[in-house]
Amino acid sequence: MREAFHEQLDSIFSDLAEICHEVETSVRLATQALLNGDVEVAEQVIAADDKIDVARERVEDTAFSLLSLQQPVAGDLRVVVSALRMVSELERMGDLSVHVAKIARLRVPDIAVPEEAQPTMARMGEVAEDMVRRVAAVITDRDVDGAIEIGRDDEEMDQLRRGSFAQLLGDDWQHGVEAAVDIALLGRYYERIADHAVSVANRVIFVVTGQFPVASESA
Amino acid sequence: MREAFHEQLDSIFSDLAEICHEVETSVRLATQALLNGDVEVAEQVIAADDKIDVARERVEDTAFSLLSLQQPVAGDLRVVVSALRMVSELERMGDLSVHVAKIARLRVPDIAVPEEAQPTMARMGEVAEDMVRRVAAVITDRDVDGAIEIGRDDEEMDQLRRGSFAQLLGDDWQHGVEAAVDIALLGRYYERIADHAVSVANRVIFVVTGQFPVASESA
Repeated sequence: MREAFHEQLDSIFSDLAEICHEVETSVRLATQALLNGDVEVAEQVIAADDKIDVARERVEDTAFSLLSLQQPVAGDLRVVVSALRMVSELERMGDLSVHVAKIARLRVPDIAVPEEAQPTMARMGEVAEDMVRRVAAVITDRDVDGAIEIGRDDEEMDQLRRGSFAQLLGDDWQHGVEAAVDIALLGRYYERIADHAVSVANRVIFVVTGQFPVASESA
Repeated sequence: MREAFHEQLDSIFSDLAEICHEVETSVRLATQALLNGDVEVAEQVIAADDKIDVARERVEDTAFSLLSLQQPVAGDLRVVVSALRMVSELERMGDLSVHVAKIARLRVPDIAVPEEAQPTMARMGEVAEDMVRRVAAVITDRDVDGAIEIGRDDEEMDQLRRGSFAQLLGDDWQHGVEAAVDIALLGRYYERIADHAVSVANRVIFVVTGQFPVASESA
């Protein structure tokens, strides 16, 4: 019984890592669509979201079947419920990539982000993508140290967001309201992707150690 | 055993309704702080968030104890997991109210929202508050018809958000980038509160009927 439980749990975690890789691709392509004003790549991100939703349903079905058939208690139960939460967050990260792609698409043939704001936005996209890539590895390897490091990366995202605000609220901002609003929302979407990455990483810490890191729980 | 299960489940749902009332208060006060530039009311919203977090933990503990001790399967299991998701979403709605309150606080002694944009923002706050209030009633009464209506209200929120964008991106917008960025983010926060309200209402439909309404699932 315990062995069957752990085999099914491993299969859930391998599905979670797979979904996380798909989210990583979505984040990368969404940033690419945004910075190049590439409508085809934007459409690709939007279309790929269905695949993530279907994968989420598969994980949920496996988790419910595991809960029903194996009736785990205590720590094992919390691990399965954590997996359900992780898959919800991964799906949400996919949705946020779609939001980025939709802003890119909305401004084609222009590029939503003016040239002087592109380095910060590109770096936000990189940090987000890198965090998601490392979350996938953390899930696969149940890597607590790696998970702790992802929390630290989130600080760079917060700094980038502050820098971005300072730029668009500065006296020398020449690109008007529309670009500023796009950038503020894009910053919010990348920040939320990073928040969810930290939260998923923290759930891995919980799954391995039975403890949440301090001040980690977020929906 | 079944009776104990249903008693504990009722207690979870009554806690959920209670948290929902607290979220309603947070949404109302956050809007009030925003439109009056009232820093004390903003601080009240920010401080009250801890209470919502503590209440969430209580619901989670009860739900885990229910899962461990009663070992529900099939439909009952899904109901308890739905309750866990509902409490995460309610907590998130509280967080979003805090985001609104923080923008209010940041602009004191000014009011973040210029006068001409206040009617739309006030209406967004009202719609969000009304949706949250009705979600509490839907949870208490397991009211499927009421839950379906909340989904319809979300359309007004989407319209308000579009109207708000049209205003701040219009040629006659005189209030600069900062106010526009604030309004775009505030609109996003209210929209997300409304999205979560719909999602919680849909989970009540699932709890009562065993079926999700079409195209409802969102994290």
